[in-house]
Amino acid sequence: MIDSYLEHAKVAKRSVQNLSDEQKVDFLMELSKRILSLKQEVMEANIQDLNKMPESDPKYDRLLLDESRIEAICKGVQEVARLEDPSGKVLYRNEKENGLVIEKRTVPLGVVGVVYESRPNVTVDVSALAFRSGNVALLRGGTDAFHTNKFFVDLIQELLVEQGLDPHAVQLLPTDREVVLELLHARGFVDVIIPRGSQSLIDFVRENATVPVIETGAGVCHLYVHHSADLDKALAIAVNSKVSRPSVCNALECLLIDQNIAEDFLSRLAPEFSKFNIEVFADSFAYGVLLNKDYPKLYQANLESFGKEYLALKCTVRVVAGLDEAMNHIDRYSSKHTDGILAQDQGVIELFMENVDSAAVYSNASTRFTDGGEFGLGAEIGISTQKLHARGPFALEKLITEKWFVQGDGQTR
Amino acid sequence: MIDSYLEHAKVAKRSVQNLSDEQKVDFLMELSKRILSLKQEVMEANIQDLNKMPESDPKYDRLLLDESRIEAICKGVQEVARLEDPSGKVLYRNEKENGLVIEKRTVPLGVVGVVYESRPNVTVDVSALAFRSGNVALLRGGTDAFHTNKFFVDLIQELLVEQGLDPHAVQLLPTDREVVLELLHARGFVDVIIPRGSQSLIDFVRENATVPVIETGAGVCHLYVHHSADLDKALAIAVNSKVSRPSVCNALECLLIDQNIAEDFLSRLAPEFSKFNIEVFADSFAYGVLLNKDYPKLYQANLESFGKEYLALKCTVRVVAGLDEAMNHIDRYSSKHTDGILAQDQGVIELFMENVDSAAVYSNASTRFTDGGEFGLGAEIGISTQKLHARGPFALEKLITEKWFVQGDGQTR
Repeated sequence: MIDSYLEHAKVAKRSVQNLSDEQKVDFLMELSKRILSLKQEVMEANIQDLNKMPESDPKYDRLLLDESRIEAICKGVQEVARLEDPSGKVLYRNEKENGLVIEKRTVPLGVVGVVYESRPNVTVDVSALAFRSGNVALLRGGTDAFHTNKFFVDLIQELLVEQGLDPHAVQLLPTDREVVLELLHARGFVDVIIPRGSQSLIDFVRENATVPVIETGAGVCHLYVHHSADLDKALAIAVNSKVSRPSVCNALECLLIDQNIAEDFLSRLAPEFSKFNIEVFADSFAYGVLLNKDYPKLYQANLESFGKEYLALKCTVRVVAGLDEAMNHIDRYSSKHTDGILAQDQGVIELFMENVDSAAVYSNASTRFTDGGEFGLGAEIGISTQKLHARGPFALEKLITEKWFVQGDGQTR
Repeated sequence: MIDSYLEHAKVAKRSVQNLSDEQKVDFLMELSKRILSLKQEVMEANIQDLNKMPESDPKYDRLLLDESRIEAICKGVQEVARLEDPSGKVLYRNEKENGLVIEKRTVPLGVVGVVYESRPNVTVDVSALAFRSGNVALLRGGTDAFHTNKFFVDLIQELLVEQGLDPHAVQLLPTDREVVLELLHARGFVDVIIPRGSQSLIDFVRENATVPVIETGAGVCHLYVHHSADLDKALAIAVNSKVSRPSVCNALECLLIDQNIAEDFLSRLAPEFSKFNIEVFADSFAYGVLLNKDYPKLYQANLESFGKEYLALKCTVRVVAGLDEAMNHIDRYSSKHTDGILAQDQGVIELFMENVDSAAVYSNASTRFTDGGEFGLGAEIGISTQKLHARGPFALEKLITEKWFVQGDGQTR
């Protein structure tokens, strides 16, 4: 079903990877201008999608593009244009005695497949990131956003043709269900698949892809309150990590508290958490303390409460004997996304940060900072919970691979 | 069956990753000395393995350790000790206005599983590389080399204990068949699996592992003789690429020749190739020319001849119309390991090298140089044909991952 898309991508790959930095920047700056000048048309296309969905659907807001969101998309494209081109860098050079010149250079991955859901901004974001780094983008967006996505990709392809470039550098795949599997199995045509969306989408991609995947995983984030913590700061950080945006992967899901400060800390936490109607799943010690404080939405934790990604105003609370028990809990139940310690003892902080094996480890700050923008990477592609190739928030710089160039004049071995 | 090994590895991981550079170097220098002083004992253990196998078995030579091979192993360990520690480097630092300090640092992967066959030197090489980069090594060697492997690992563990280190930093797994699958499925315990050995071993690992794999792939290497080539040099390079060690992955498997020089080049190639008794699988044009020259071991190429990894004194020969046809052939049939062009036209060389999508691309040199040692990387772990994480020959520097360290003083978002 997508054979012709794949063949076109293979041809486009060669021309996109040979574009100059200037050509890529010019294209993106022009794209940003063009979208901005067509705000009205974007919204009209978007309304065709919105009309198929009741406003009460939680996806409605994710799908909606208004003027300010369109402007934000254009600003994003300009930011990507301003990022440094990650390809073409010489990482290693060795001129051997026999005259052989060996270089390892960064080059584009080739063809990047992206599978995503209802947010139409992903279409433009990912196209810009792929193009900036010299890659072809094959986009499989959600059916809900079809008209909006098609408007954007038609526009991109028009502009590619105007600039004398291969329009197949960015392609929108059909929304038929079987297309996803075909894309995941397109070894030899697609170099990497990046899923963007819900955990079930990511799981489906990981379990079915034969093409390599950069996995952007779940966030079962922990905070450990050590007995040396400044409890005022710890309280503010725990509350912020939990409530500032509970639906995202860097939100707090489980709070671990040293036993000798647990009663004190929980007594202060209870009124703050109850302000936000947070359901607490507490181990027996914490349950006793919170029951005593008449905490309104209190449940006993069971084994499922550990390692649970709520993505909601719910939180697991467990009291631990100390650092080792906290680290063992995190080792066992964390999704290795973001885990932090709240403490004043520098030795304990270092032990925690060195030994907790997560993509991002924190001391004394909200888990909510784990984000490409907050970290200063520019437009984020995702947050990887893998250890190979990309880890934690990643952007443009991970859409490349390495390639060895060996130049000789008759050398044999 | 290997649960206790995995649990021990998990504990050892924390201590190995916290060792200082000096501790790691001292250990390896001492290990090298120790093995050197026990050459006789190594050979005695090795004889127990050799005695189980007839000398005529092709594995006999791979298994055999004599004095010079043991010395080479020790030299290898010293070289690894001298390599720079790839962990602990700050790759990125961002001190935000709110005081948050964000760093991305290189850290050890954690637990590295290696599955290999009869060469016992791999046991020491890989242990040294894993230890140097702060990783725990879980080794699953072949049954054939059991006594030799056990001697080496016992020695390593003894020395670890002597130096007050965790002996489980290097562990030899039982040789039972089911151990391989258990290792490949040990998600959460093993961070990466590296297969070293035959293509069938590598395929088995790739197809069965749920732990991430760094795949060291087959080498279906091509050379393309462009009509601008210096035919004397081209001839020497083609012969060297094919004959100098036909059993290895960087040996030539398929020669592509521009039509307008094909008769001339093949006439010169025929006497050279026949000296080495090379069986040639030729397309119809080349077949006609070589038949005319009474080439002794000549066969007509069929579709199986394209993309075939012979690992023997056999070679596919195809005549092409020019650069595009050559690149299309390589795109379709290469294993993306090493492919080269023989030409004097710089423009053509550049087009070839930029557009051929292989781990290593060459101009005017033997494919046989694709090797960690030849490239100057020190002890090679393997040659990756993946695009993510590691590509081409890789060593110590790929046994690490990245980790984000975020240090705050109460920051919330």
